[in-house]
Amino acid sequence: MTRTPTSTPWPSGADPRPDGTIDPAFEAAAEEFNTSPVVRLLGLRLVHLKPGRARLVLDVNGRHRNLRGVVHGGITATLLDAACGNALRAALGPGGSVTTVELKVNFLAPITEGRLVAEGQAVHVGSTLAVARGDLYYLPPGDPGDAPPEKPPAGAPAGPGRLVATALATFYVLDRG
Amino acid sequence: MTRTPTSTPWPSGADPRPDGTIDPAFEAAAEEFNTSPVVRLLGLRLVHLKPGRARLVLDVNGRHRNLRGVVHGGITATLLDAACGNALRAALGPGGSVTTVELKVNFLAPITEGRLVAEGQAVHVGSTLAVARGDLYYLPPGDPGDAPPEKPPAGAPAGPGRLVATALATFYVLDRG
Amino acid sequence: MTRTPTSTPWPSGADPRPDGTIDPAFEAAAEEFNTSPVVRLLGLRLVHLKPGRARLVLDVNGRHRNLRGVVHGGITATLLDAACGNALRAALGPGGSVTTVELKVNFLAPITEGRLVAEGQAVHVGSTLAVARGDLYYLPPGDPGDAPPEKPPAGAPAGPGRLVATALATFYVLDRG
Amino acid sequence: MTRTPTSTPWPSGADPRPDGTIDPAFEAAAEEFNTSPVVRLLGLRLVHLKPGRARLVLDVNGRHRNLRGVVHGGITATLLDAACGNALRAALGPGGSVTTVELKVNFLAPITEGRLVAEGQAVHVGSTLAVARGDLYYLPPGDPGDAPPEKPPAGAPAGPGRLVATALATFYVLDRG
Repeated sequence: MTRTPTSTPWPSGADPRPDGTIDPAFEAAAEEFNTSPVVRLLGLRLVHLKPGRARLVLDVNGRHRNLRGVVHGGITATLLDAACGNALRAALGPGGSVTTVELKVNFLAPITEGRLVAEGQAVHVGSTLAVARGDLYYLPPGDPGDAPPEKPPAGAPAGPGRLVATALATFYVLDRG
Repeated sequence: MTRTPTSTPWPSGADPRPDGTIDPAFEAAAEEFNTSPVVRLLGLRLVHLKPGRARLVLDVNGRHRNLRGVVHGGITATLLDAACGNALRAALGPGGSVTTVELKVNFLAPITEGRLVAEGQAVHVGSTLAVARGDLYYLPPGDPGDAPPEKPPAGAPAGPGRLVATALATFYVLDRG
Repeated sequence: MTRTPTSTPWPSGADPRPDGTIDPAFEAAAEEFNTSPVVRLLGLRLVHLKPGRARLVLDVNGRHRNLRGVVHGGITATLLDAACGNALRAALGPGGSVTTVELKVNFLAPITEGRLVAEGQAVHVGSTLAVARGDLYYLPPGDPGDAPPEKPPAGAPAGPGRLVATALATFYVLDRG
Repeated sequence: MTRTPTSTPWPSGADPRPDGTIDPAFEAAAEEFNTSPVVRLLGLRLVHLKPGRARLVLDVNGRHRNLRGVVHGGITATLLDAACGNALRAALGPGGSVTTVELKVNFLAPITEGRLVAEGQAVHVGSTLAVARGDLYYLPPGDPGDAPPEKPPAGAPAGPGRLVATALATFYVLDRG
């Protein structure tokens, strides 16, 4: 299968920032995030950041699995927390900072391998509190472009892959940027 | 059915059929819902129902308010629970039935008057469990079309009014329809 | 008031404050709550209030039911929201005031009749935010003392009746009292 | 300061067997859990397991921290998910198995160092679904017994340390054991 950045922009394994673009205003924030200890420990990566939106990618490996060989819920929660938090941080602007008040995650399907893509979206930004939602999509190993996303239920938006988890989270605004 | 802008003020502009439409396949279900006791007690109304989507409306009155004169969180939760449950019911098809396993609601702004519009959307329908999200919008009294919706944060979708609450909920599939 | 454990266990319908006592410091707050519009609409009642703890009672009637004849989830959410909020209000002291940021409710069993007792408990009170949990118990119609509470799972605390819902909620501190 | 596992384990005083005990019926399950990949990656440890109850311990190190030098919310979520899941697994009995449907975590205070202790408790075990709550306590570095737990709000139970997070979660019963 022939692919070009234009026709199948996301996600290409070879690209260090698959379909991701970091808004120039947030490059320092993204770089800082991607070099933080827990991010390196787990192997996740912030690949897209613009006001109110963030995308992270994690390529699943054996270390992420639990007893039954599936990705542990804590890994899923980490990805969604980070997607939501970064989306809100970028909604506030450069210098914006938030901390998680509470996070609620629904786990929709088990994952054993492949790539996880977490999309975060700002929902509400108040003076003290902010709310975001996050969706976690799964792409099978190999060329993700070859695997059509699973059909979502009627009325649900189509995503870049199979929806495997979704989150709704509340944050405290530490710095409005 | 004869309708006038005065009696069906919501929402003008964006929706050519402002008060919603009930998919013919779900007319019996909507009628049943709208005549159930708690629905009549609170005064809410299911106005739009199609596979994976539902919309309810409540015109706020004094009975819905709490100590501080704002709509009680339980009313908000009722609207969002009903929006999510009906969206999933309709995602399953005629005869589909679900019951709430758990509901998580974020309250984003206090409401004291006007119209509340709850939008439910199916996110995931599995064999045993299903997940939906709901958004609650506020429209001020008078002609809502005159009041532009509050600008949501960057990256957030625009809704029919000001977003005042949002929910993520899990349901048990009682009948697949 | 003379009571014996055998004849009037808890709660007794004849008693305006069944097993409940309102800490004198909070009598005005409880009275205010019990006369607010939505509380009267639904028929619930705050019967116990002391620092960090609150108890509400609702006697189920036909108006509280949904399509399937069971108490609507919104009623359950209202009770638990009120139990959590009052517990935190009283944890802050007389004059304390909170508003719900978000509420998450698990519905454990359907209820069709009888008495619902909501217990709220402060978990954390910070300078801006506070967290509480709530448990909703069901007591069958008739003399509740005749019906032993359903045995909870191993490791779970015994409550005054069958546990039918549980909640964890976040509040914003409006007034520290 | 010199410490040995024998002289200053966790927590002193309240628990005669400070580091927890594994009910003999669950020794195989605990051993399996403690050797699973993600558990080893993060460095957490299941130290106490009996029907309906579980306790895990994590000694914080640099790898668990996020941008601001505090333990990442995903680590907290992992601990609480594991505490809840193991408590339910043990409530079902040897051979019992559950998977997380959804998890909601409240983050109450930032943690930068020391020991985290997650306590899980079964709340409800139904035929298909089960619910648990979890509490995460923090003990400062050094001899935990020397640091009195922070005073919880009125009405809240005292724990083995400062309460830094709390969770309410729903699980699907895979195997009733």
